[in-house]
Amino acid sequence: MSNYSPRLNGLIEALRKLPGVGPKSAQRMAFHLLDRDRLAAEKLGKAIGEALSGIGRCKTCRMFCEDDGCRYCTSSRTATGQLCVVETPADLMALDSGTAFHGRYFVLMGRLSPLDGIGPEELGLSTLQSVMDDGDLQEMIIATNPTVEGEATAYYLAEMAKASGLKVSRIAHGVPMGGELEYVDSGTLSQALTGRTLV
Amino acid sequence: MSNYSPRLNGLIEALRKLPGVGPKSAQRMAFHLLDRDRLAAEKLGKAIGEALSGIGRCKTCRMFCEDDGCRYCTSSRTATGQLCVVETPADLMALDSGTAFHGRYFVLMGRLSPLDGIGPEELGLSTLQSVMDDGDLQEMIIATNPTVEGEATAYYLAEMAKASGLKVSRIAHGVPMGGELEYVDSGTLSQALTGRTLV
Repeated sequence: MSNYSPRLNGLIEALRKLPGVGPKSAQRMAFHLLDRDRLAAEKLGKAIGEALSGIGRCKTCRMFCEDDGCRYCTSSRTATGQLCVVETPADLMALDSGTAFHGRYFVLMGRLSPLDGIGPEELGLSTLQSVMDDGDLQEMIIATNPTVEGEATAYYLAEMAKASGLKVSRIAHGVPMGGELEYVDSGTLSQALTGRTLV
Repeated sequence: MSNYSPRLNGLIEALRKLPGVGPKSAQRMAFHLLDRDRLAAEKLGKAIGEALSGIGRCKTCRMFCEDDGCRYCTSSRTATGQLCVVETPADLMALDSGTAFHGRYFVLMGRLSPLDGIGPEELGLSTLQSVMDDGDLQEMIIATNPTVEGEATAYYLAEMAKASGLKVSRIAHGVPMGGELEYVDSGTLSQALTGRTLV
């Protein structure tokens, strides 16, 4: 399948670097852009250039931000006294668009994973410590993923926050809304039982 | 989900224009490009620009081609005297990489579809006619898709080629190699029986 002309090959190879895109999809995308939607291709090229030059990382919360400042580190969010720690920007977006939480965030950009060489420094925990030291914070809400590494990270974060005298909470884990008990795995069921709340 | 910052939103919207990419995939791709692989993003932007400026359409076969000329309209391919008509560039790539056919091609860039306003002119059949008039051709192999519109297009092409005194053939339709009769649809089975060959 490598007998494309050089530029076409370049485009297909570049598209394959996108997550979830294999050789067939990349070919389909390239042909679509060249054949049917050159305007979309132009816009995509422009959008990538603008994103690369204009989107950086917020120094306080590590979320993507543009030159007009971080939209997740506003004074109204600081005023809530709550800070939610998540693993990725996608987690932040999911929480922010799907829930009524209006506090601040901190994006780890990963999770503790010593075998991969990801320690507290790679996750920017010194930045997080200085946010905690600022004194505006009352509660840290830990929203790392319920995986082994996510749990280890959560434990580490909780120790850090307690040492700084903060209230620490963890988002609830249990049966998803609309889910059926019959089809929920045993680990989640155990968690749901352990984490039961009085009504 | 529209509370992204402007540039990020622009990138996600541009990625959504790719075939098979929905809002979630587009967000994932954008975050991947910004967070993990800025080099890939740069390359993609560059590849799109180069493809748009450097890839055109061959005047003879309507396949994508670059400034060094069309790789499917070479004199060695012309010498075979065969021309295979396909609907899309992807069909051409599939045939060319998967078979031992080494003749010329003609890409319709669609199929006859009067309701959508696609007639012989939109498919460049006047170009095809002039290729046939050139006199190098002995056989036209029709490889349109076995859909209603593809069949109508095949019939039209066959009439054209016969009027020009060419041999006309159609690729075989039947049970796919490795397929099991039990799971093949009745239309394909009927086609396989009708198109049986003597052994």
